[in-house]
Order: sequence, then structure tokens, then C-alpha cells
Amino acid sequence: MAAISFELIKKDPGSLARLGSLTTTHGSIQTPIFMPVGTQATVKAMTPEELVEVGSQIILANTYHLYLRPGHELIARLGGLHRFMHWDRPMLTDSGGFQVFSLGELRKISEEGVNFRSHIDGSRHFISPEVSIAIQEALGADIAMCFDECPPYPAEYSYVQKSLELTTRWAQRCKNAHQRPDQALFGIVQGGMHPELRRESAKQITDIGFDGYALGGLSVGEEKEVMHRMMHECSDILPENSPRYIMGIGAPEDLVEAVNAGFDMFDCVMPTRNARNGALFTSFGRINIKAAVFAEDQSPIDPACSCYVCRNYSRAYLRHLYRSQEILASRLNSWHNLHYFLDLMAQMRAAIGRGEFSSFRKDFYAARSQQL
Amino acid sequence: MAAISFELIKKDPGSLARLGSLTTTHGSIQTPIFMPVGTQATVKAMTPEELVEVGSQIILANTYHLYLRPGHELIARLGGLHRFMHWDRPMLTDSGGFQVFSLGELRKISEEGVNFRSHIDGSRHFISPEVSIAIQEALGADIAMCFDECPPYPAEYSYVQKSLELTTRWAQRCKNAHQRPDQALFGIVQGGMHPELRRESAKQITDIGFDGYALGGLSVGEEKEVMHRMMHECSDILPENSPRYIMGIGAPEDLVEAVNAGFDMFDCVMPTRNARNGALFTSFGRINIKAAVFAEDQSPIDPACSCYVCRNYSRAYLRHLYRSQEILASRLNSWHNLHYFLDLMAQMRAAIGRGEFSSFRKDFYAARSQQL
Repeated sequence: MAAISFELIKKDPGSLARLGSLTTTHGSIQTPIFMPVGTQATVKAMTPEELVEVGSQIILANTYHLYLRPGHELIARLGGLHRFMHWDRPMLTDSGGFQVFSLGELRKISEEGVNFRSHIDGSRHFISPEVSIAIQEALGADIAMCFDECPPYPAEYSYVQKSLELTTRWAQRCKNAHQRPDQALFGIVQGGMHPELRRESAKQITDIGFDGYALGGLSVGEEKEVMHRMMHECSDILPENSPRYIMGIGAPEDLVEAVNAGFDMFDCVMPTRNARNGALFTSFGRINIKAAVFAEDQSPIDPACSCYVCRNYSRAYLRHLYRSQEILASRLNSWHNLHYFLDLMAQMRAAIGRGEFSSFRKDFYAARSQQL
Repeated sequence: MAAISFELIKKDPGSLARLGSLTTTHGSIQTPIFMPVGTQATVKAMTPEELVEVGSQIILANTYHLYLRPGHELIARLGGLHRFMHWDRPMLTDSGGFQVFSLGELRKISEEGVNFRSHIDGSRHFISPEVSIAIQEALGADIAMCFDECPPYPAEYSYVQKSLELTTRWAQRCKNAHQRPDQALFGIVQGGMHPELRRESAKQITDIGFDGYALGGLSVGEEKEVMHRMMHECSDILPENSPRYIMGIGAPEDLVEAVNAGFDMFDCVMPTRNARNGALFTSFGRINIKAAVFAEDQSPIDPACSCYVCRNYSRAYLRHLYRSQEILASRLNSWHNLHYFLDLMAQMRAAIGRGEFSSFRKDFYAARSQQL
């Protein structure tokens, strides 16, 4: 029996948006969904209970970081990542590929895998497709990802082509290595910003066959317009009856465009990272809480928001906490931003359920044009 | 009608420990009690709801910090400190005296008050007894403190004597200036480590007459033995039917000794500050979570503890969070330490209620001699 099952519940009549249900070893997820990122076995500044309260159904953890510290074998000995971090709901681990390639000068790629130095202490390490799968099986998330190469942007066409072929060979090695029956394995489609290479990659990856499919290598520096066009070019090259995931996406408008293009799963550090820098998401666009205009502002971050933070704290207080570099600033800002992202997904699911995604999308952009 | 009332519920037969109930504008407090410190209008890393969950009945905020940032007048315009920080239970503000004197070279004392420079931006400021009361009335805590001079330790006898007389003159000016009918005002007894000066100060301060009385100037660098002896020398110089508060105390053993000596209220940054440095309090003494011995330790911080952290997280996970400099490390460590301090107070109240404080005190020291 497969480690996951995906049911397509409804297709929106006026767009490619779709409503689905993904059942994993640790429970079911309603899609489309955003996955908060818990890089080091914690979604920064949040407890697991708070993640549930803001509407998280599944979270993502980073293989690269956990391999280095505290080590996947230690986590396995302690009963796996779910138990280690007190999260008993669905979880996905990335492959470590993207993080390793982001090391730049610190890594070297070969057919066999990637040699790199730790960003923590400079120590030497090697990750191959087989090693990545072994780490991910030790961590024990519900969904593991294939180890892929993410080409830089911009990159030569011929480089991107060679890279996607390496990613395909690595995907086959990942599939061969993967054994854990309670863990799904997703393939990753590369191909840069070239639709024909994306198509070629999708064919090779789907020929191998995985439990779900992701687009890697987006949001790597390209223009928003290019990113959104790639989403539209790439959704129908992935099987309709499998979950479709775009990795590392994104800003609220990217999520709306990705759902509009027929994708189901997303992850990004944006809500939590921006929160720690004082940048807050609202129904009328982004605000920065450190602005002097908020010094005596008694209103909540977003009067339209129902989250714990907006129910109990003023912009003036949040500005004070931020300026005073208080931990509670990071907490409350992260809480609100995650609620915003997850509520946006819930609103999109409701709109698809009503068959009105196109009008939701129109309203979304109209609200943002109302400036504060 | 007085802003507070204090009822002495029970006196322990074998010690000076006492059980009381202090009723303020924002509710009643069972004493003896420990007050978590919310320096900048937040008890670091905690939400108000979490403070209630760990057993906080009253918190303390720092006048000096809030005067500088965001400013007491701003807080008053926003409805006062309770509303600003989303805390609707009892609260006490210190006078700013201790913080200002801690500035060392940055301040200058005169009969009129203290000129000082801000630790944030070096700007010049002046706080007198009248200014301190005006700030505290603007903040609007349930209990305000007199502006006092805290002599350094060690200090010449003659300096301490002159200082306590200045503190008395300032206390009279504070009482004359104080107007807010829903706010109590406590006097502060100084006198360094000289029992006869403490007695002289207590006579002068109680002659003026306040809603409660505090010992200032302890825990300023003296030996533990000296501190504990001063507690015993000083409890009967304060009126029995008023709340007795020792400011800036302390470690768990200091709290046990202070309760044993007949004191009712305490505050200290120790539980939260130590937490952020990885030092955790347990029934068997202190541990530091960064120690390598905890790397694979699946037990909770304290197997005897029932707090949220001990119910859900291992020492191994907490060590990982601490080493990874995660915000959740500060959160969970603060949560546990505050629970420890407040549960210790609850255990002491229960022991006094049973008339068995002496045997509680004996057991407390016996448990701590069991090393990890």
C-alpha cells in the first residue's frame, strides 16, 4: 500500500485551481496548502500548538540543517523527528539539495553526489541521492523529496539541460534507495526558465514514477512575471491525479497564481523571516511595524484579521516590542504572518469549493490596491 | 477607600512564614508570591496567557525603561500599561530608583532628584520623587513604589545613614505627590547591611505610613549568608498587617529564606534571564541544558515537574534548540523556569496552610542535595 493517497475533490470551473485531500501516515491535509518551514526542527518562534492554532496542517523540515545538527542518527535514536520536536501531524523533509547548492564556493558537484563544507564549522561532508534518502528515512517525515540539482539563474541552456538529466539519474537512484513503507517520495522537476526543458524533465521524472511531483528551481532570482508564467507552463506537464508542489514559494500573490495554475502544495520562510524583520502581511498589502506612523496606533495589524495577535495587541505595542528587540516581537509577528498565509490558503480552498476561484483572485488584488 | 487591602490568613506555627491575601484594583493575590519581571512591558519570551498558565498572579514592570521607551505619556494616552501589554491582572511598577542608580557614572544624585543619561541614546533626563510618581501614575499599575536611593555595597556607615535619611525625605515627597486613588503606594526601607540603620529607616518610613513596605538594597553583591541574616533581622521591623516585599530577590533558596523570615512578595529577573542562558531550575538544583551529557537524554528537564515543557520536550531537544540559538529555546526555558519559581511559591503557601513550613523547608534543601 502506498504511503500516501491523493484525492482530487473538485476542480474550479473558471481556472486550473483544484481542491484535494492528501492522506499521509500522520493524517490528512486539505489542499491547496502552505507548509510553514521548521528548518532546525522548530518553526522559528512558534510552538507546535500555536502552529495548529494558526491553521498549519503540515510543516517542512530541512534535511541539510538537521543532518549537521543535531544529526539524523541522533534524531532516529530518539524516536524520529515527529517525536523529537513534538509534532504529530504530517511533515515533509526537503532533500538537502537546495541548501547544499546554496553554499556556492563551499560545494562541488559530481555524478556521484555533492562534496561540501558545513556552514557551521567548515567540516567536510558528502551527500549523494542515497545519503539524502538515508537521512530522510532516519528523520522519518511523511513525505521525502528526491535529491536534485538546482541550477542557478540565469544559466546557459546547455547547463540547464545537462543538470536536469543529472537530476533524473539521481531521482532514479533515490527511488532505488528508498525503502521506508510509511514514507512517500516525491520527484522534482527542474529545467530552469525553459518550458521545453521543464517538459522534458517532467517526462523523465514521471516515467520513473513517484507519489507526488514538485517544481524545483523557481523563486531563484527570476522576475515575478517569469515565475508566474513558468507556473502556467508547467502545471499540465504533471499528472493530474498526483499532488503538485512548488518548492520555496512564496509571496501571497505567488501562492494565488500557483493555485490558479493548478498547484497544491507550497513552502517558504517568508512569513516567519519577514516577521522577524517587522514586515507584516495584511489583506491590504504589507506594512512595516517599525514605521513611526504606528507609534500611537491603537488598531490591530489588520482590522480584517481574527488571529490572536490582532484580537489582543495594538500596532503601537507591536512597534514598541520590535524597537525594544523583544522576543515577543518575533513571536507575535510570526504568529500573525503565519495566520495570514494559512488563512489565505483556507480562503482559496473555500473559493474553489464554491467554484468561484476567479472572483476570489480578482478580489484579492483589488483589496491590495487599497493602501493603508 | 484604600487602593489595596491585605488580609493575614494564617501564621505558620514553626516559623515566621505567613499566608496572606492582597486585594488590588485588578484582583486578589495569594501571598507569599513571586512577581515575574516585565521590564519593557513584556515578561521576556512569554505571552500574558502563558504567564497565567505558569501561575503568575502579579507582574512587575520597570518605570525607568518604560519612561525612556515608549514613554509613559504615550502609554497613558493608549489607556495605561495594563491595556498596552494585554495584562488585566495585578501589576506593580518599581520607582526607577534602582535602575537609575545602576547607571553608575551616567547619573548624579542631589536632594532634588537624579540627573542621568539614557542607556539607549545618552540623552539627558531628570527623575525626582515627584517625577517618579507622575510616571507611575501614568503607567497605572496597581502598586507604585517610592523613589529611593539604593546605596552601593559595601558602603561607609555614614554614607548609608545619610542615604536612608534622603530616602525618607523622598518617601514623604512621594506620598505628598501621589494622588491616584486606584493605585497603592509602598514605602522602601534602606539601611544597607546594618540592622540598626534598617531599624531606623523602618521607623521613619512606617511613621510616614504606606500601603505596604519593601526592603530595598538587598542582593547587591553581599554574601548569601549576610542577605539571609538581614532578612531575619528586618521582618519584625515592618508592620505585621501590611504586605512585606523584598525587592530583587532572588534564587529559590533566597525565596525560601525570605518566606521563612515572614516576607510576602518578591521579584527577580533570575528565572527568565537564566533561562535565556540555558540555566534551568529543578527540584534537585540547577542544570545547564547546553551540557554534552544531555545530547541524547530523553527525559524532561525535571521528571518531578508538571509544566508544559516537561510534559512535551526532552532535554535532548532543548539542548538542540539552545545550541541552534532558536527563539523556542528562550521560550521553553523561560516557561519552565517561571513555572518552577511560581510552583515553589504555591508549594510554600500550601505548606504554611498546613502549618508545616519548617518541614517543607527541610525537604527543599534535602532534595537539592541529590545531585543529577
